[in-house]
Amino acid sequence: MAAMSAAMPEIEPTFPVPPLNYDFLAPPRIVFGWGRRAELGPLAATLGSRAFVVSGSRTLEKNGALADLFQLLQAAGVEPLHVGAISHEPEVGDVDRLTATIVAHQPANDDFVIGLGGGSAIDLAKAVAAMATNRESTCVVDYLEGVGRGLKIVHSPLPLLALPTTAGTGSEATKNAVISSYDPPFKKSLRSDLMVPRIVLVDPELSISVPADVTAHTGMDAITQLIESCISRRAKPIPRAMCLQGLQLAITALAEAVRNPSCRSAREAMAHAALLSGMALANSGLGLAHGVAAALGVECRVPHGLACAVMLPTALHVNRAGCAAELASLARVVCPGPFSSDAAAADAFIERIESLATEIGIPKRLSTLGVRQNQIPAIVTGSRGNSMSGNPRDVSDEELSELLEAML
Amino acid sequence: MAAMSAAMPEIEPTFPVPPLNYDFLAPPRIVFGWGRRAELGPLAATLGSRAFVVSGSRTLEKNGALADLFQLLQAAGVEPLHVGAISHEPEVGDVDRLTATIVAHQPANDDFVIGLGGGSAIDLAKAVAAMATNRESTCVVDYLEGVGRGLKIVHSPLPLLALPTTAGTGSEATKNAVISSYDPPFKKSLRSDLMVPRIVLVDPELSISVPADVTAHTGMDAITQLIESCISRRAKPIPRAMCLQGLQLAITALAEAVRNPSCRSAREAMAHAALLSGMALANSGLGLAHGVAAALGVECRVPHGLACAVMLPTALHVNRAGCAAELASLARVVCPGPFSSDAAAADAFIERIESLATEIGIPKRLSTLGVRQNQIPAIVTGSRGNSMSGNPRDVSDEELSELLEAML
Repeated sequence: MAAMSAAMPEIEPTFPVPPLNYDFLAPPRIVFGWGRRAELGPLAATLGSRAFVVSGSRTLEKNGALADLFQLLQAAGVEPLHVGAISHEPEVGDVDRLTATIVAHQPANDDFVIGLGGGSAIDLAKAVAAMATNRESTCVVDYLEGVGRGLKIVHSPLPLLALPTTAGTGSEATKNAVISSYDPPFKKSLRSDLMVPRIVLVDPELSISVPADVTAHTGMDAITQLIESCISRRAKPIPRAMCLQGLQLAITALAEAVRNPSCRSAREAMAHAALLSGMALANSGLGLAHGVAAALGVECRVPHGLACAVMLPTALHVNRAGCAAELASLARVVCPGPFSSDAAAADAFIERIESLATEIGIPKRLSTLGVRQNQIPAIVTGSRGNSMSGNPRDVSDEELSELLEAML
Repeated sequence: MAAMSAAMPEIEPTFPVPPLNYDFLAPPRIVFGWGRRAELGPLAATLGSRAFVVSGSRTLEKNGALADLFQLLQAAGVEPLHVGAISHEPEVGDVDRLTATIVAHQPANDDFVIGLGGGSAIDLAKAVAAMATNRESTCVVDYLEGVGRGLKIVHSPLPLLALPTTAGTGSEATKNAVISSYDPPFKKSLRSDLMVPRIVLVDPELSISVPADVTAHTGMDAITQLIESCISRRAKPIPRAMCLQGLQLAITALAEAVRNPSCRSAREAMAHAALLSGMALANSGLGLAHGVAAALGVECRVPHGLACAVMLPTALHVNRAGCAAELASLARVVCPGPFSSDAAAADAFIERIESLATEIGIPKRLSTLGVRQNQIPAIVTGSRGNSMSGNPRDVSDEELSELLEAML
């Protein structure tokens, strides 16, 4: 092939685009809008006639929303079976027990799964949908990355409809489920291209009952995902475009959603940004903040979103020098310009993230989360998962250890 | 719900986002990259074991590429049946005849369709994949929008793998097939959410054999789609984000691809932009340029891309006043700034499009395309399809007639 002519590009791109060589996986159908959970029945009926429902915390049960959703399913000829509820990040035992429950119902062609709740519920739903049809082992550990027997998801999971109720993990649009273990301590993914939900139904109205601290933490998870997938060494073009839009909305909306939980426009913006962050991370990977957050989760029981939020500024400073153009492009959608250089824009962006974190009450120090110095070696070890492998530059154990100690 | 607080938004968004109430349909799997047609076999095998192949013009047959692709299929255990080839925009008779051929092969669960070529071949493949499983009528007219009996595609079409060889229509990512008739004259869509291809495999290397004029015309089709879907009254958030990236790349790359057909980076950029334009139009609709282009196709036999290219500047001037913010956001990714106002940026964007059209040899006058004054009433009538309904403002028959006369 002829080399690219000197005439191209004519102008320096303000928004750099990753190499045009990529795979892009996404849920084939997304339905998004305030109050649109009313459409659950007909949407669900396109997947089958019996739904194994996995739900999150009890709020939706208490306020009647769950019963309303079940009525919508029944009115459309879908029989809902409420097989499980979870109020913590899913663990190995949760997956194995719930899979056994579903298998006991002898799932067939007309059965599917509905995951309804935050990232924990949707990840659990995603995991059991896959484990119900992949029976080479009855223990999910054997299918997790980096632990167990390394088995693969080879059979199509039960079809999944995801209905998120928090705006954070983006799990409704990803191909993995994050599963925790505390003894031995690990937080690893069950991952397969086959695990992407078939239908994603996002109704931001469901998130108005989410308390301020959870709104802040899950929102910062979404923001961290948007940023880390943008600067990831596996960054892809379509996700990059989505991240610019998601960040533009989220940076303004998150503080408002925390201050004013019933603000419709802020909840809509955060739900959309979280969805985009899921599509982005599923295709582009993540980075240092998520790598360390996984370890903080299993070593110190720090909730995932909070762990991401605390780590994000450090991750930005670590990567700033190598990603100035990418960070500058983020600045151009969220900070008032113009900027004298990419470096100046990148600095403005990092400052904007730091001020947002302060505004919504994210602590700066790991000690505030209960992390002790003697836990740092285990945190460093536990950080070396799939997320860290996307970080734009290598960070040695020694450097990571120093970074974490400086944050104590 | 509480009204949005006065504190939001803090800064005027530089990139306006359409209302956060949308459906988004996309191909569940996209594989994009130079030379990646080599992966056709295993990808196709995930859809079935017998492929009805619909191809485009004879170039790929002559240069051996088609035989190579068939070998890849066979090596993966997929039997290719070359059921049809088309070198013009598909007509009613083409669809009905090819559907009959496929039905005669008694398609079953393990069968699927491969559409391989430009927009004509992929649209034909998409139409026959749908008609093969929807047999309430054997004539596609009965299923087209606005003509015939108004039948709906209710059964899942045969699964479709789309492998585009030009960079233009984005048909590989849409849910419709455009079907022409010359007596009576119409150009209408067969459209269903069920018609989105399952797998899209884009190998920009296949486009290096596309001649300069076709490159120019199909490229301007993609650019027109990116712009019209961005300013459409049905514009959606995710497509808007994609359009910004697609336009940034295409504006620079198209002239280069025309000048230097074997320029890899330009071909990659145009193939990516065309794919994004397909996802955008499938979800956001189009506008005046595409509305008139349909009529120019059936009334005056103007090739679709050329018709779009000629109409685009007029469509931009017509819509400029009502879409300054949207056009300004496009300027910010393709023109050197800064701009004193949205209006100034919008003007800079329109000038950039006009200079690109001039550079790649797009005529300005309809008479150059052979359009005569006495055809204008029929063109006005023929412009009132689904595309025109997306135009950001209503354009009366009288105004449209005047616009077209001024272009003669």
